[in-house]
Amino acid sequence: MVNVGIIGAGRIGKVHTQGIITGVRAAKIKTVADPFMNEETEAWLKSWDENIKVTKDYKEILADESIDAVIICSSTNTHSPISIEAIKAGKHVFCEKPIDHDVEKIKEVIEALKDSKVKYQVGFNRRFDHNFKAVRDAVAAGKIGQPHIIKITSRDPEPPNPAYVAVSGGMFLDMTIHDFDMVRFLAGCDAEEVYVQSAVLVDKGIGEAGDVDTAVITLKMENGAIAVIDNSRKAVYGYDQRAEVFGSGGMVATKNDSLSTAVISNENGVTGEKPLYFFLERYMDSFRDEMNQFISAIENDTDTPLGVIDGLKPVLMGLAAKKSVEEHRPVKISEILI
Amino acid sequence: MVNVGIIGAGRIGKVHTQGIITGVRAAKIKTVADPFMNEETEAWLKSWDENIKVTKDYKEILADESIDAVIICSSTNTHSPISIEAIKAGKHVFCEKPIDHDVEKIKEVIEALKDSKVKYQVGFNRRFDHNFKAVRDAVAAGKIGQPHIIKITSRDPEPPNPAYVAVSGGMFLDMTIHDFDMVRFLAGCDAEEVYVQSAVLVDKGIGEAGDVDTAVITLKMENGAIAVIDNSRKAVYGYDQRAEVFGSGGMVATKNDSLSTAVISNENGVTGEKPLYFFLERYMDSFRDEMNQFISAIENDTDTPLGVIDGLKPVLMGLAAKKSVEEHRPVKISEILI
Amino acid sequence: MVNVGIIGAGRIGKVHTQGIITGVRAAKIKTVADPFMNEETEAWLKSWDENIKVTKDYKEILADESIDAVIICSSTNTHSPISIEAIKAGKHVFCEKPIDHDVEKIKEVIEALKDSKVKYQVGFNRRFDHNFKAVRDAVAAGKIGQPHIIKITSRDPEPPNPAYVAVSGGMFLDMTIHDFDMVRFLAGCDAEEVYVQSAVLVDKGIGEAGDVDTAVITLKMENGAIAVIDNSRKAVYGYDQRAEVFGSGGMVATKNDSLSTAVISNENGVTGEKPLYFFLERYMDSFRDEMNQFISAIENDTDTPLGVIDGLKPVLMGLAAKKSVEEHRPVKISEILI
Amino acid sequence: MVNVGIIGAGRIGKVHTQGIITGVRAAKIKTVADPFMNEETEAWLKSWDENIKVTKDYKEILADESIDAVIICSSTNTHSPISIEAIKAGKHVFCEKPIDHDVEKIKEVIEALKDSKVKYQVGFNRRFDHNFKAVRDAVAAGKIGQPHIIKITSRDPEPPNPAYVAVSGGMFLDMTIHDFDMVRFLAGCDAEEVYVQSAVLVDKGIGEAGDVDTAVITLKMENGAIAVIDNSRKAVYGYDQRAEVFGSGGMVATKNDSLSTAVISNENGVTGEKPLYFFLERYMDSFRDEMNQFISAIENDTDTPLGVIDGLKPVLMGLAAKKSVEEHRPVKISEILI
Repeated sequence: MVNVGIIGAGRIGKVHTQGIITGVRAAKIKTVADPFMNEETEAWLKSWDENIKVTKDYKEILADESIDAVIICSSTNTHSPISIEAIKAGKHVFCEKPIDHDVEKIKEVIEALKDSKVKYQVGFNRRFDHNFKAVRDAVAAGKIGQPHIIKITSRDPEPPNPAYVAVSGGMFLDMTIHDFDMVRFLAGCDAEEVYVQSAVLVDKGIGEAGDVDTAVITLKMENGAIAVIDNSRKAVYGYDQRAEVFGSGGMVATKNDSLSTAVISNENGVTGEKPLYFFLERYMDSFRDEMNQFISAIENDTDTPLGVIDGLKPVLMGLAAKKSVEEHRPVKISEILI
Repeated sequence: MVNVGIIGAGRIGKVHTQGIITGVRAAKIKTVADPFMNEETEAWLKSWDENIKVTKDYKEILADESIDAVIICSSTNTHSPISIEAIKAGKHVFCEKPIDHDVEKIKEVIEALKDSKVKYQVGFNRRFDHNFKAVRDAVAAGKIGQPHIIKITSRDPEPPNPAYVAVSGGMFLDMTIHDFDMVRFLAGCDAEEVYVQSAVLVDKGIGEAGDVDTAVITLKMENGAIAVIDNSRKAVYGYDQRAEVFGSGGMVATKNDSLSTAVISNENGVTGEKPLYFFLERYMDSFRDEMNQFISAIENDTDTPLGVIDGLKPVLMGLAAKKSVEEHRPVKISEILI
Repeated sequence: MVNVGIIGAGRIGKVHTQGIITGVRAAKIKTVADPFMNEETEAWLKSWDENIKVTKDYKEILADESIDAVIICSSTNTHSPISIEAIKAGKHVFCEKPIDHDVEKIKEVIEALKDSKVKYQVGFNRRFDHNFKAVRDAVAAGKIGQPHIIKITSRDPEPPNPAYVAVSGGMFLDMTIHDFDMVRFLAGCDAEEVYVQSAVLVDKGIGEAGDVDTAVITLKMENGAIAVIDNSRKAVYGYDQRAEVFGSGGMVATKNDSLSTAVISNENGVTGEKPLYFFLERYMDSFRDEMNQFISAIENDTDTPLGVIDGLKPVLMGLAAKKSVEEHRPVKISEILI
Repeated sequence: MVNVGIIGAGRIGKVHTQGIITGVRAAKIKTVADPFMNEETEAWLKSWDENIKVTKDYKEILADESIDAVIICSSTNTHSPISIEAIKAGKHVFCEKPIDHDVEKIKEVIEALKDSKVKYQVGFNRRFDHNFKAVRDAVAAGKIGQPHIIKITSRDPEPPNPAYVAVSGGMFLDMTIHDFDMVRFLAGCDAEEVYVQSAVLVDKGIGEAGDVDTAVITLKMENGAIAVIDNSRKAVYGYDQRAEVFGSGGMVATKNDSLSTAVISNENGVTGEKPLYFFLERYMDSFRDEMNQFISAIENDTDTPLGVIDGLKPVLMGLAAKKSVEEHRPVKISEILI
C-alpha cells in the first residue's frame, strides 16, 4: 500500500482524490493540503474517507514520514518548486501538467531528480484514454506500418474566459500541450519542427488578451512522419477528441465517445448523441489509470510511463508554436532550448 | 445482341426500359407494348431511342420473329397467361414478380416450360442489390459459418392506398414476397414453416380492406436456421431495407444506403442522412443488373439466376403467411401445395 | 447512510460489493454472508474495506439491527425464502433475478410484502444500462411516436455447460428473462402472448439436457406493438446486446459497446473492435446504478424502480415461452397464472 | 439537343463518352478525335453508338458546323492551345483539368474568352460528387455557421510511376490540384497563403524524379478560415477521399464510399468494406453530372458552374505550394501572379 498526499484540492485535486479512492486500490490518501481548504472541501473529502487529514500547509505532507508520494495539483506556477521540495524530501512525485511554462524551471526539476531514487510522473492523462491507447497500440504493433501522417483533432466545447487566457500561458501551453504530448506518444518519437497557422475566430476577447483560439499546427517528426493538430476553443457539439495515424500499411482512427450508442431515425435524419461534453466526462477513467501506473511504478520500482523529460518536451513544442505565430515561419524545436 | 420486347409501359416497364438502354449493352429494345400506350409515353420512349416501336397490342411482339425475349411488366393477373403465350411463341421470358397469386396458374407456367428451351426469369431484383448480394456472398463463402438466425427488416416509406390494398393480394403477396425470396436467397434453402404476428397500426383503411400493415414473420428453414422478417407499411424516415445473418462463425449485417455520407454535428446531435426514399432510389442498379443476367443467360445458354420455381416458392410462403394470420398458428409451407 | 448486508459472495455478490464500495456513496456494507465463505473471499472483501464483517450464516445479517437492507445474491432456489425472511425481519430487499422459477413461490413473496413498509427491488440491471436507458427515454419522450415493432438481440459469447443448463430452468428463465423484462421496459406495457421458434444449433449437449440454445421469440404487447427477441447462446464475436424500437414517428436503435472506437483500415477492410466480451464488461455500471436507485428509494421512501411484480412478469413470460415450445403454438401469458 | 465532339479518346475521354451516352440525355456525341485512334477504340465507341464518327484530327471537329461543343480530353500540354482554337471556332468548351501548368498559357485562354459568347467549363468533377456536394450544401445553407477549419483528406491507392511523375507537373499540380479546387468550393472563397510540409515516404523513385509523395498543406482562406489538406500517393486500403468543415455552428464531415454497407463480425473484429478503389469507381457519377451541367449551361445560356478563373486559381495554389516546399516558408498566392 502506497500512502499519498494530495497537494491542491481544486478541480483536478478532487478528480484524483475520487479516482484514487474508487479505483487505485494500492494507494491510500493520508492527507490533502490546500491553502484555501475550507469546511465544504473538508466535508467532501471526509465523505469519501473519514480518515483523510486536511491541512492548509502542503509542507505538513512533505514532513510526514508515513507518506510515500505526493500528487501535485496546485496552481501551475508552484508545480516546479513544490516538485523540487518533494524530491528533496524523498517523496515520489506525480505532477500535473505542465511542469512549468519556463524551460529553466523544468531544468531545475530535472537537476533535482539527478541521483535521486524518486519516481516522477507528469499528468498527461490522455495517453491512458482507451481510444488514444488503442491507436498507439495499433501503431506500436506495426498494424499500420511506418507512420506517415498523424492527425489530431482537439476542440473544446467552451472557450475559457479572457481573464484566464491572459495568465494561462496561451492556448499552445494550456490546451495544445496535451496534443503535443499525444503527437509524441502516437509517433513514438520527438518533433523536429513546428509551423502554426492560427486565428481568433471564436472570441475577440481572447485576441485582445494576446492569444488565439483556432489553429492548425503542422509538425515534422523525427521519424519522417508529418503531424497535424487542429484546435478550436469552441465546438458547439461538445468535446471533439480524435486521432488518426496513417502509414505505409494502413490507417487507424478513432471517433468520439458519447453517452450512449442510441440513434434516432426520423423525418429529419439519422441522429446519434453528441460527444461527451468535456474532459471530466471523457477522461475520468484515464485519470484513474495514470494514477494506477504511477503507484505501480513505485511498488515495483520501475520507470513511470511519463517522466520529467516527457514533461519538458511538450513545453518546448508549445514555445516553438508561439514563436511560429510571432515570426510567421516554421520553427525548429531546437531553437527553443538555446 | 438480344432483341427484346417490353410488355407493359407503366412504372416498372419504364424502369426496365431505362435500365436496358443505359446499362444492358447486349440487349436492344425493339418494341414496347401497352394497352394504354399514349403520346406522352411514346415520346418518352423515343427520347431514349427513336427506333423503338410502340404498340397497344403485345401480340405484335410475340409475332415479331426478330424479337428474342420479352419483359413482362403488365398487371399481375396477366403475368401467367402472357408468360404461357410467350413461351409457346418461343420467346425467352423475364416476368415481373409475382408470377401469380394463384398457385394453379403458376403451375400452368411450369407446365408450359417443360420440354421448352425458353429461358425464364422472375423479377426478384433485390438479389442483385449490392448490399444483399454482399450478405449472400459472405454466407456462401462460409464467412459466418452455419447460418442460425436470419433477420430481414423491410419497411416502406408510405402505405399504399386502401383501394390498391384490396386488389394487391395483401401485404404478404405484394410486399413481403420480396422478403420471402430474400430469406431463401440468404439461407440458401427453402422455408418449412411460417408463423405471423401481425397488426393494423399504420392505417385503419388497410384493416378495413382486409389486410394488415405491420408484421413480424418467423420462419423455420430447411437447414435448421430460424428466419425473422419485420414489415411495416410506413417508416417515416424512409425505405428501411436491411439484412443480418448470424451463424456459428459470426454475423454479417447491412445498413441502409443514403444519398451521401455527410454527417452534421451540432448542439442537437450527430445527424446523417435518411435512407434513400423508396425502391426506385434504392434498387435502380439492381433492376439493371438482373436484366444483364437474364440477357447473359440467353446469350450463353445458361440457367437464369431466378427460375420459375423461384417464382413459385415465395408465393407459397405468402399464402402460408396469410393462413397463419387467419388461423393464428404456425403453418407448414407443405400445407399450401395440397 | 444505509447499512447493507450482502447474502451470497459468489460472482454477482462480488459485483455488488465492488459496485457499492466504489460507486454507491450512500450505502455502507456491514456484513457479507456466504455458506462457503473462505479465507480468499474474506481477504478480497477486506481489501476493499477492512471493516466488513464476514459470516457463513445469513441469519446473522437478518438479526443485526444496525442493518437496513439486504442484497440477496444467493442461489436462485433460496431467493424467495430469504426474501420472505428478510421482509419479516423488516429489512429492505434487493433480490437478484429471478425471484423464483415457481410462480407460487413468487406469490408468497408478494403476500409477505403486503402491509409491509419494506422496499423490494429485483435485479434486472439492464434497465440501468446507458444504451437501453437511452432507448427507453426516447420512447417515453415520444420521439418515435407510438411503438409498433420492438426488437431485441441478445446473444451470449459462450454457452453454459450442459450441467448448468439442466438446473438453470432453461434458456427462457435463465437468459431470455432479461430480454422479457427489457421488452416490458421498452414497450412500457405487458405482453399478452408469446410464440417461440427455437432450435439446438450451438451445442447438442444443451439439447440433451432438455433445453434450446437458439430462439426467435415473438410477443404481442398490450399496447398493440409486436416484439421480437432473438437469442443465441454463442456469438463468436462477443456479447451482442442491442435494441430497436420502431414506431409511428421513427425508430431508435442501439449498437454494441466496445473497448475503444479505434478502427483500422488496411488491405483487408475497415475493422473496429468486437463488442465487450460479456455481462461483467458490458453491464458493470448498470449494477452500480441499480443499487444507487435502490438505496435512494430507501432514503427517500419512494418506490423502487423494479418491484416484486416486475420480478413476476418475466417469469410468466418465460413459462409461456416454454409452453409455446412444448405445444408449438402461440401461448397467452394469462394461461400461465391459472 | 447539343452536338458534341470529344477530343482525346484516352481514359478520361472514354469516361466522358460513356457518361454522356448513358446519362446526358440532352447531348449527342457526333465525333471523337484522337491522334492515336485505332480499330479497338473505334469498335468500343461504335459499340456505344454506331453513328459516332471517328478521326485522328481534332480540327475536323472544330470545322464541323453541326457540332456545338467540344470536350477536351487530350494531353495537358494541348489543353490551352486547343481551348483557344475551339473558342475561335465558336465552340463551347469543356476542358479537363488543369488548363495548363503555365499561368501565362491560362491567361491566353482568358484573353480568348473575352468578348466571346462561348461557354467554358473546367473539369473539377469532385464538386459534383454526392458527398462533397452535401458538405458544400451544408456550409452554404449555414448549417455549420461561419467556417473556421476546413479539412480534406485525399490519398490515392497507388503511386504513379516515377516516369509519369517527371512530366506531371508534380503532385501539387497533378493530384492536389483537385483538393485546392475543393478547398475553394467548400470555403466559398479563395486562399491567401499556403504552407507545405512534405516528404518522400512512399517511393524513393518519386523523390529522385524531383517530386514528393506525402504532404500536409495548410492554407489561410480569405474568409479567415484555416484549411488543411493531407495527401499521400499510397493508401493501401484504397482511395481515401474525405472532407470536414468545422465552424461556429457545428461540423459537417463525410466518410468514404464502399461497394456495400455489409459488415462482418467475427473473432477478429467488426469489419466493413474498404473504400472504393480509385477515381473511376468513386467519381463515375460526378463525371456524368458535371457534363449535364455543362450541357445545361449551353442550352439555357447560363454560366457554367466552373469557369476559366476556377481553372486558374488551383494552378496558382499549386505553384505557391511548390514554392513553399522550395523555400520552406508560407507563400502568399499573390506572389505567384507577378
